[in-house]
Amino acid sequence: MKIIIDAMGGDNAPFEIVKGALQGRERWGVDIVLTGDTTAILKALEQCGQTDLPKGVEIAHTTEQVTMDDEPSTVFRRKKDTSMGVGLTMLRDGKGDAMVSAGSTGALLTGATLLVKRVRGIRRAAMAPVIPTTTGSAVLIDCGANAECTPEYLMQFAYLGSFYAKRVLGIENPRVGLLNIGAEDGKGTALQKETLPLLRKAHQDGHLNFVGNIEAKEAIKGGCDVIVSDGFSGNVMLKTIEGVGSYAGSALKGIFKKNLLTKLAAVMVMPGLNSFKAKLDPNKVGGTAFIGISKPVIKAHGSSNAEAIENAIAQAKQFADSGMIADIEANIQLMKVEQE
Amino acid sequence: MKIIIDAMGGDNAPFEIVKGALQGRERWGVDIVLTGDTTAILKALEQCGQTDLPKGVEIAHTTEQVTMDDEPSTVFRRKKDTSMGVGLTMLRDGKGDAMVSAGSTGALLTGATLLVKRVRGIRRAAMAPVIPTTTGSAVLIDCGANAECTPEYLMQFAYLGSFYAKRVLGIENPRVGLLNIGAEDGKGTALQKETLPLLRKAHQDGHLNFVGNIEAKEAIKGGCDVIVSDGFSGNVMLKTIEGVGSYAGSALKGIFKKNLLTKLAAVMVMPGLNSFKAKLDPNKVGGTAFIGISKPVIKAHGSSNAEAIENAIAQAKQFADSGMIADIEANIQLMKVEQE
Repeated sequence: MKIIIDAMGGDNAPFEIVKGALQGRERWGVDIVLTGDTTAILKALEQCGQTDLPKGVEIAHTTEQVTMDDEPSTVFRRKKDTSMGVGLTMLRDGKGDAMVSAGSTGALLTGATLLVKRVRGIRRAAMAPVIPTTTGSAVLIDCGANAECTPEYLMQFAYLGSFYAKRVLGIENPRVGLLNIGAEDGKGTALQKETLPLLRKAHQDGHLNFVGNIEAKEAIKGGCDVIVSDGFSGNVMLKTIEGVGSYAGSALKGIFKKNLLTKLAAVMVMPGLNSFKAKLDPNKVGGTAFIGISKPVIKAHGSSNAEAIENAIAQAKQFADSGMIADIEANIQLMKVEQE
Repeated sequence: MKIIIDAMGGDNAPFEIVKGALQGRERWGVDIVLTGDTTAILKALEQCGQTDLPKGVEIAHTTEQVTMDDEPSTVFRRKKDTSMGVGLTMLRDGKGDAMVSAGSTGALLTGATLLVKRVRGIRRAAMAPVIPTTTGSAVLIDCGANAECTPEYLMQFAYLGSFYAKRVLGIENPRVGLLNIGAEDGKGTALQKETLPLLRKAHQDGHLNFVGNIEAKEAIKGGCDVIVSDGFSGNVMLKTIEGVGSYAGSALKGIFKKNLLTKLAAVMVMPGLNSFKAKLDPNKVGGTAFIGISKPVIKAHGSSNAEAIENAIAQAKQFADSGMIADIEANIQLMKVEQE
């Protein structure tokens, strides 16, 4: 298994990316290709105590970078030798099994779509982070790649999310819910009203375990394993989770820092608090899978540190090992809305 | 000041509603009209230790109730004598200054629109709860009344939310943000893209303090005082806050209940934890204002206890005292999108 890593993408590139790549290689037993400027990568390796290129690590030299100012739709035409674009091209050409980048989300998604391409028949690739729930976790698909969706996109997301939950997260017969503002039929916008019967039919035909409309609150309680949403509402949900998580974190910090007694209290509950915080920490979660692309692409958080990259590599490996892309290809006929 | 209270609405009616009404009357110095079945209300009063009708408390006898099974759009035609419908009609006729109900949200909104009516020129009434932020609180408008919106609705919500933040919450020059999936121009769906220039123009003309697109995470950090949204995304945001809040609550409970030491820790940080929990507790917050209706209507949570009703009464009083409906009427010309 070989993972391609964009060494120049993200706020902490290249040092934290390279460091995380070394940790990931060690921990998960994968080979690594680092794309980017050779001098900068070698320097980062040296800072990690590696004077020679370690076994199982390659560098693919590139001279350019995708920046946050680059227009995603044109950058790969204008810049032919970016660490991100070259990595994606290598992935397409079979020179690696999965790709990880902490660079611009928009550029990575566009690049994955243009260079690696979607699975044939898939209308749109989706971003599918795994979010924490009271009882475990759930896949939220889409969370921002597609602000405007059709019922067919959402039906496809339901299948994609379901395969991901099953193959990558190991959830048997994942429960699929349609994010809505009430559980009853007739709730939501035209999009949800038109998607509901499509998912119900897929359930009746035995292709999906669809549990119906689900409210955000019930989803966080663990009411389903796959939350199907347009990218706009899904992004609002994801960012609200992050926001409230960070709000709760800072509120707790304030509570525990008040005086000597509360500081003592903090010591007593530290292990519990840390595991609670870890569940909401993007660095522990790793990255967000782009699903619907014909090869595994993982977007790591822009602010990823080495630990985040290490975890994103684990996720990339699981994705590549899972066989879920074969699942999509084998079931693509189910994911089409017939033209009437 | 006289507040009309639907004594039969909500999961805990009539006892908790009547109890909360008595507490509210005492605490906020308002008169109360309880609408509903006289026998049931008198029994609840007796359970509160009141054998006679207390001073400043009236009963408006009604024989019917709006239930969760009633269709909001037809219930007030079919049932002419419900505690909710009679209350709204009394409000319209000036027999009270504001109305509080913990009954069906859909019915209350429809009833307020049909019976009390919107301010002339307002296209849609909106639900505008006050949500906690890291630095204080913010008005989220709309959060579910209107799943599908036009740019004009959103522009009106921006004004309505701004008046509410200023007059009811006492925020000088409230910062208005448009909920979006990124801060940059061009983010979001057609709705956000078309609303952005309308709000920008209102800002340039000095009518609104518009701070631009805002992501959910930044909004929760306190990036604005009024979060403008279609009802679908706004509802997703609100329910996610509730869900994560309750998740954090149960996680903390688990952490502190682990052993004797952690239970001791809980005692030390109890005051801080309680004030944190209060900020996320719907019973402390009171209710959600329906804004755009020509008189103040407050929807209390369906599961409201007496404390929640007491707080909703405070909110109803502030709303009625605030003069914000006069603000809307005086500025209605600004809130129209010119026909081209």
